[in-house]
Amino acid sequence: MSAADGQKIAMLGAGYYSANTVGAKNVIDKVGDLVVDAVAKMPRPADGQPFAIADFGAADGGTSMDMMRRVVGAIRATEPRRAISITYTDLPHNDFSTLFRLSQGLLGNPTEVPLAETPDLYIFGSGTSFYRQIVPDNSLSLGFSATAMHWISKRPCMIADHVQAVGASAAERELFRAQGLRDWETILIARARELRPGGRLALANFCVDEAGRYLGHTTEVDMFDSFARHWRDLLRAGRISQAEYANATFQQFYKTPDEFAAPFADPDSSVSRAGLTLETMFTMVTPCPYAEAFRVHRDAAAFAKAYVPTLRSWSETVFANALETSRPASDRSAIVDDLYGAYEAEVARAPEGHRMDYVHCVTEIVKS
Amino acid sequence: MSAADGQKIAMLGAGYYSANTVGAKNVIDKVGDLVVDAVAKMPRPADGQPFAIADFGAADGGTSMDMMRRVVGAIRATEPRRAISITYTDLPHNDFSTLFRLSQGLLGNPTEVPLAETPDLYIFGSGTSFYRQIVPDNSLSLGFSATAMHWISKRPCMIADHVQAVGASAAERELFRAQGLRDWETILIARARELRPGGRLALANFCVDEAGRYLGHTTEVDMFDSFARHWRDLLRAGRISQAEYANATFQQFYKTPDEFAAPFADPDSSVSRAGLTLETMFTMVTPCPYAEAFRVHRDAAAFAKAYVPTLRSWSETVFANALETSRPASDRSAIVDDLYGAYEAEVARAPEGHRMDYVHCVTEIVKS
Repeated sequence: MSAADGQKIAMLGAGYYSANTVGAKNVIDKVGDLVVDAVAKMPRPADGQPFAIADFGAADGGTSMDMMRRVVGAIRATEPRRAISITYTDLPHNDFSTLFRLSQGLLGNPTEVPLAETPDLYIFGSGTSFYRQIVPDNSLSLGFSATAMHWISKRPCMIADHVQAVGASAAERELFRAQGLRDWETILIARARELRPGGRLALANFCVDEAGRYLGHTTEVDMFDSFARHWRDLLRAGRISQAEYANATFQQFYKTPDEFAAPFADPDSSVSRAGLTLETMFTMVTPCPYAEAFRVHRDAAAFAKAYVPTLRSWSETVFANALETSRPASDRSAIVDDLYGAYEAEVARAPEGHRMDYVHCVTEIVKS
Repeated sequence: MSAADGQKIAMLGAGYYSANTVGAKNVIDKVGDLVVDAVAKMPRPADGQPFAIADFGAADGGTSMDMMRRVVGAIRATEPRRAISITYTDLPHNDFSTLFRLSQGLLGNPTEVPLAETPDLYIFGSGTSFYRQIVPDNSLSLGFSATAMHWISKRPCMIADHVQAVGASAAERELFRAQGLRDWETILIARARELRPGGRLALANFCVDEAGRYLGHTTEVDMFDSFARHWRDLLRAGRISQAEYANATFQQFYKTPDEFAAPFADPDSSVSRAGLTLETMFTMVTPCPYAEAFRVHRDAAAFAKAYVPTLRSWSETVFANALETSRPASDRSAIVDDLYGAYEAEVARAPEGHRMDYVHCVTEIVKS
């Protein structure tokens, strides 16, 4: 998962992100089969050229590390001497040191041979946003991205009485939709320049699926409604101002499969003219591991205590950054603690239906 | 400046390093002419291939940013449409976020167009040590490094009664020399694989020059002797143990020009057989800006207060890491504070001769 420009993700220490996003890794493991198949379908790069992989919005790279091992294995199975490069991209403030340490085996599982020890494999970081071109023209063999491109490039407005576009007013949601669709085109055009002919993109993006499901909304409970409700309680209690209340607006938009597909459906679109074709698209729901564990152990308090921190890991900066900077840091921390504390108490009290199932739209895109 | 594996540089906040290493930037600015000339001499990459630059041991990239602008300008002057890549390398714990922010204009001088805004320029980070191959075979056009390769890959021993090889016993110094010479060969062989035919390396490395001068030793005062003396005082005062005293050993070796040249002088050396030729070599002394300012203002206390922190910026982790980890952090900080406090008091009391002049050996190396 990544964050778009202007919205800061506080890294909470080395490896924290990956360790707390078990679900994200599950998604990538599932998409691994598709990626390995994609490798087999790709034309070989010219002699002397590396098989160039990019992971867009890679965070600390931990969630995709096992998949990268599989991809490297698949490439080397047919071309044992092909040089391989992996460029991990994210925003400049990303924790690239943790990424490099993980790849070199300086953090993480010490029993595995570090990815960076693979002969003739070269690992790079890029702090360039995926809304821009990141690698040179016609140089990329395989672009991968998981759970990153719902972060839009800017917020077209603050959402007055909710925190995410899924709960915005119709007018607000249309502004977010327009931004999301423009951004999707921008992403694809940049990737079209980067890809070699025959190169492929394998993307697993958050979506609103055919059944109207989305992250944290696969039951009657809606995670973003829960965020909004607890945030509104802080407004009503006088803890936060009206401006702070509105400022808590996730810089995100979840597209539908139709919206993902739209640029490819029109042969005259800029995306089609850039040579991109949508080869495969499907949606998938990845069960929330915390809610699944709860079904077995039935300890609501333990579930709440495990579940809410994983929500917090990617959401808290939205609330922290919504608060006036004139507030003392301790005050801001206390407000954010209260928000998640109230959420945790709610889950402990009434756990049923709370689950952060991932809802992804997987697309495989080919450049002609 | 960089640090070799196993020796940690604590980054003291965004941009701190560059701001405190005015001298380092001066060196790079001087070497800029040579680098720009090198660009003019190089064969053009094949169509569709980027002009690939690497900065080995780049730290936050701040000191070489202006030179990179010049290099990019020189490439584009002859090939306006050539894609360019710059790969900044350092150890995994380097502050790559600051590097990316600086290049994108999110830190630093806001009046300049950010380097990363250059059309068709692609910036990468690599956390791979320069003792390993960092980019694929035959892909590098221009390798640059300033003030980094005196950090050797490991310490062959602790120096019992000094802090740097320049003050070690003869037997200790020979161990450091052997390590330094092996490391130089390792560096060159890795670069030989990376360079394209006709590609060049422009390196400005710390050295012991023809007159026996080296960093902080261009007058009768020796900076490393000063470090050693104040550290010894802490031993004598019972503040540190004998083991801690010996542990403060810089993982560095300063080669002479002859030692830099040796692998090239022998046509049967592994370096020569790898296709590398030494085209240019010269030494240069860059005056310490703090000592030069003191010559004008003559305020010894002000000089000491400005001068010692710049020494501290790159040296303090050697002393901090020499201390037992069982000591409370506050105790370790206090000892290190006392070391630099004593050094500062000495400079304030007797400022003459204290100057951290940089003494570099500049080499330009070509791959055939």
